[in-house]
Amino acid sequence: MPGRRTIGVDMGGTKLLAGAVDSELSVHHRVQRSMNRLDQSYLLDVVVDAVEETREGAGAEVDAVGFGIPSLIDQRSGNAVIAVNLPLKDIMFADVMTERLGLPVFVDNDANLAALAEHRAGAARGCTEAVVLTIGTGIGSGLVLRGELYRGAIGAGAELGHTVIDLNGPPCQGNCPNHGCIESLASGTALAREALRIAHEQPRSGLGRALAAGRELEGPLVTELAHDGDSAAIEAIELIGTRLGVAIASFVNIFNPEVVVIGGGVMGAGELLLNAARAEMLARALPPSRDIVRIVPAAFGVEAGMIGAAALAFDALDPRLSS
Amino acid sequence: MPGRRTIGVDMGGTKLLAGAVDSELSVHHRVQRSMNRLDQSYLLDVVVDAVEETREGAGAEVDAVGFGIPSLIDQRSGNAVIAVNLPLKDIMFADVMTERLGLPVFVDNDANLAALAEHRAGAARGCTEAVVLTIGTGIGSGLVLRGELYRGAIGAGAELGHTVIDLNGPPCQGNCPNHGCIESLASGTALAREALRIAHEQPRSGLGRALAAGRELEGPLVTELAHDGDSAAIEAIELIGTRLGVAIASFVNIFNPEVVVIGGGVMGAGELLLNAARAEMLARALPPSRDIVRIVPAAFGVEAGMIGAAALAFDALDPRLSS
Repeated sequence: MPGRRTIGVDMGGTKLLAGAVDSELSVHHRVQRSMNRLDQSYLLDVVVDAVEETREGAGAEVDAVGFGIPSLIDQRSGNAVIAVNLPLKDIMFADVMTERLGLPVFVDNDANLAALAEHRAGAARGCTEAVVLTIGTGIGSGLVLRGELYRGAIGAGAELGHTVIDLNGPPCQGNCPNHGCIESLASGTALAREALRIAHEQPRSGLGRALAAGRELEGPLVTELAHDGDSAAIEAIELIGTRLGVAIASFVNIFNPEVVVIGGGVMGAGELLLNAARAEMLARALPPSRDIVRIVPAAFGVEAGMIGAAALAFDALDPRLSS
Repeated sequence: MPGRRTIGVDMGGTKLLAGAVDSELSVHHRVQRSMNRLDQSYLLDVVVDAVEETREGAGAEVDAVGFGIPSLIDQRSGNAVIAVNLPLKDIMFADVMTERLGLPVFVDNDANLAALAEHRAGAARGCTEAVVLTIGTGIGSGLVLRGELYRGAIGAGAELGHTVIDLNGPPCQGNCPNHGCIESLASGTALAREALRIAHEQPRSGLGRALAAGRELEGPLVTELAHDGDSAAIEAIELIGTRLGVAIASFVNIFNPEVVVIGGGVMGAGELLLNAARAEMLARALPPSRDIVRIVPAAFGVEAGMIGAAALAFDALDPRLSS
């Protein structure tokens, strides 16, 4: 008899990823949908359809569904407070989905769920205190404190991407009114901006020649050039890593964590990024916290949010199954 | 029959404060000792003597002793890792005191214990998520998360005073290798430094005249001048409040707390400081966290650490008393 399953759903701004997952967090059936430019009513239809298809292919009974949403979630109500890239503002998402799917539904921020996946089965496994940063266009984050996901008073916490490191820094993006937070200085967006600046300053570098050739200096290209040894590209990545290290020093002082896990697209730069972050953290954080913390790459890639959403559903079911 | 008592001991760099405290956290007997320039062996004698005197005046049986130490405590061993202003490096303080006092002994960082006192009976009472900052010569801090004091993996966490707000800022003090953290930019030490700069720039202001008269521009004088309406002194205090607000915005994004409590000597500046901090936090932090958090003065003054140390002892005893 196959074990129980939950369905994890990661609702990205452009793509939905759903999976039927067992209690060991192995994925048994995957479904993808495009999410570009849907209005709210059609978006909900697409979500329901994707979950139903996943359920049919699950190979076992499905007990619940977990959703990761790129949004601040008000845990008091299951209300998605602000979904920057999805038309989900001010609907009672959990209630609507429970009704339409006929299954228990649990919702959390997508970055929180990536942290949950890393804690259960990834780079933070076995740790009680972990900081997980997901660095792409923006910087998502999740916190594991005393062995559990930390959400704050109403579920709006763990927004570490909006920690200030330069009080006079540039304005942030999206709905963030801050300036000089790490999302504005150390995200993939910031990497592209710094690469462009350095390319202009060093026209004979690999970065400079790529710019002259009309190529867009996005993260993957900068990373590729850096791995090929271009000193300008390396400079851009190390600058981002150093700025991350400034914020990580603060997090190490605040949380005394066992591990800081870095994932997301910018982690294509790998040890080049991490070594710069480690050096800056070591130069700034307090002993003994700085000496016990590890800064490591995430174990999960694009499926972290989906797997974490399934883990959330297992966690939420547990008290009821055991009663 | 009088209820149970514990003794709380706050071991400051210059002064020891001990009190016999009941389970409602009322203080029944107080003892003070000077701690200036004692070597380790004599310091331990003074501590033992102060506890014994407090015990004699307690008016009821004493069950345990809690100590607050201005130090990072390794909770794995009760070892005071770094005590900047006390000669307690690398002794097993809890073990030594248990042996000499013949009572159960519990130890924590003094700023953590101030947070515990505020949570149990002060400005953070009834909250599950609270950030407590104690702003004096340096910036101490404690975190209440999910209703409990947060210490990190080995007890070295909750050092929020060493959160960076300006990656190119001035060097910090004591054993902190960082620069641009709030202790370097928004402590009482920073207030005195900024007041001196402004006094030089504005020689006809109240601050400037005080400087010309040979007075030392320490926090209490700056606060007094600000309360008298001197615009230069107000400028200095608002600058410190604004910088605090930058860090508080990060803390609000990270913790989604119900309350941020500010205590310590610099809080002599009262609402002048808090209003500047509130305005900056509101301009930077994310909704909805920024809209639910309150920034308020601490309820306890100099006795916060001592009362928190007694509360720590009650907490630590509880599981044993109930078994």
